[in-house]
Amino acid sequence: MKILLVGASGTLGSAVAEALDARGHELVTVGRTGGDIRLDVADPEAVGRLYERVTGLDAVAVAGGDAVFKPLSELTADDFAATLRTKALSQLELVRQGARHLAPNGSFTLVSGVLTEEPVVAGAAASAANGAVEAFVRAAAIELAPQRVNAVSPTLLTESVEAYGAVFPGVEPVPAASVAAAYVRSVEGRHTGRVYRVGH
Amino acid sequence: MKILLVGASGTLGSAVAEALDARGHELVTVGRTGGDIRLDVADPEAVGRLYERVTGLDAVAVAGGDAVFKPLSELTADDFAATLRTKALSQLELVRQGARHLAPNGSFTLVSGVLTEEPVVAGAAASAANGAVEAFVRAAAIELAPQRVNAVSPTLLTESVEAYGAVFPGVEPVPAASVAAAYVRSVEGRHTGRVYRVGH
Ligand SMILES: NC(=O)c1ccc[n+]([C@@H]2O[C@H](COP(=O)([O-])OP(=O)(O)OC[C@H]3O[C@@H](n4cnc5c(N)ncnc54)[C@H](OP(=O)(O)O)[C@@H]3O)[C@@H](O)[C@H]2O)c1
Ligand SMILES: NC(=O)c1ccc[n+]([C@@H]2O[C@H](COP(=O)([O-])OP(=O)(O)OC[C@H]3O[C@@H](n4cnc5c(N)ncnc54)[C@H](OP(=O)(O)O)[C@@H]3O)[C@@H](O)[C@H]2O)c1
Repeated sequence: MKILLVGASGTLGSAVAEALDARGHELVTVGRTGGDIRLDVADPEAVGRLYERVTGLDAVAVAGGDAVFKPLSELTADDFAATLRTKALSQLELVRQGARHLAPNGSFTLVSGVLTEEPVVAGAAASAANGAVEAFVRAAAIELAPQRVNAVSPTLLTESVEAYGAVFPGVEPVPAASVAAAYVRSVEGRHTGRVYRVGH
Repeated sequence: MKILLVGASGTLGSAVAEALDARGHELVTVGRTGGDIRLDVADPEAVGRLYERVTGLDAVAVAGGDAVFKPLSELTADDFAATLRTKALSQLELVRQGARHLAPNGSFTLVSGVLTEEPVVAGAAASAANGAVEAFVRAAAIELAPQRVNAVSPTLLTESVEAYGAVFPGVEPVPAASVAAAYVRSVEGRHTGRVYRVGH
């Protein structure tokens, strides 16, 4: 399949790229600073240009997304709005516009995270964004068929323990390669409207 | 208790006002076009003015919120952004700013809805907003204690069957008074981080 992968240079995305490549898929990678195509998927117009440039897609997989981590008492209104925009609205927009461009049996695989269900201190904005993504996936699935849409919800990645481990006390991490397997399951399987929890 | 009630003139809000009043609470009501105080809670600056004007609050309860209902193929990027702003960010902002103003054991009761878990056609934006509210409630709860925060998630209200019933085929509605009871439970109880599902 021809698959658009957003965030292929990231911690999770590089494992997803490896797994999809090993399955023989053709990847077109997207990032703001690296990849085959460089643009910001949080800008709806950039998403429009993306789908004009890349045609014949069978699947879109997202392994990118930013969130502001700060104690609730320090988070600003702009932090919440920015996190919803960069982590949630960007992914909703990739689906909304992508539906017109993908193959009739094409699929979207989005990314949420453990914080939807299991919060951590300083993660309230990320939790809200993840919750939006997961509820959207369940809702969009019933309107997109026969196209499909799922989300992958990883717990803390083993590869991210050094960077974020302090925020997740007592959380057992999962290797990015295990999370990448859920992307393969979403892309090659027939499920839709599913949230694949990995490691939690 | 002295309780700020957003949306007291609405279908759900009027039942909540009646239930809280019957329990002997003092209400300060808020709406854009009616109520003791008239302003738009989707504007973070208006929320700031609200908390400067109303002091000595023990609880904030929200029974308002707008969402755009359209088939996924007709929803625009602006529809998604507007729905997240008016239904989700407005409530997050009432909590974020309210934490500094409420009594130390004060509580917030937000509103989500059945669409977080059980989608309907044309409800993708509302689902996303509800998912954000519910995940935020779980996350904010661990940082706000001893203040508390919960959400009430109603299914279709009996009083709204005429207006929205066609969008919810086969969904058994629940009287607004039963949903209002969950607000009393949240305000007077000691739970936090809970989503009270009513009728589903
Ligand atoms: N790491 C974890 O432990 C963990 C756990 C649970 C969930 N998650 C979620 O998994 C996702 C990836 O996390 P990660 O740790 O792998 O992140 P990361 O290492 O920072 O990688 C993010 C990738 O996405 C790209 N990207 C980010 N924003 C973009 C935008 N607006 N437009 C285009 N490309 C964008 C980045 O490239 P550019 O910078 O070049 O744009 C990069 O390739 C995030 O949504 C995160 O919330 C991560
Ligand atoms: N009705 C249902 O069957 C149902 C089912 C599940 C969930 N819900 C949720 O319950 C909530 C209330 O629904 P409803 O049917 O009772 O709505 P409604 O009858 O339209 O009432 C909404 C109330 O909120 C106020 N309001 C709305 N936006 C506001 C804003 N930005 N700033 C200040 N006040 C605002 C309105 O007053 P003004 O117009 O004067 O501002 C009105 O008093 C919504 O979040 C809805 O999604 C409803």
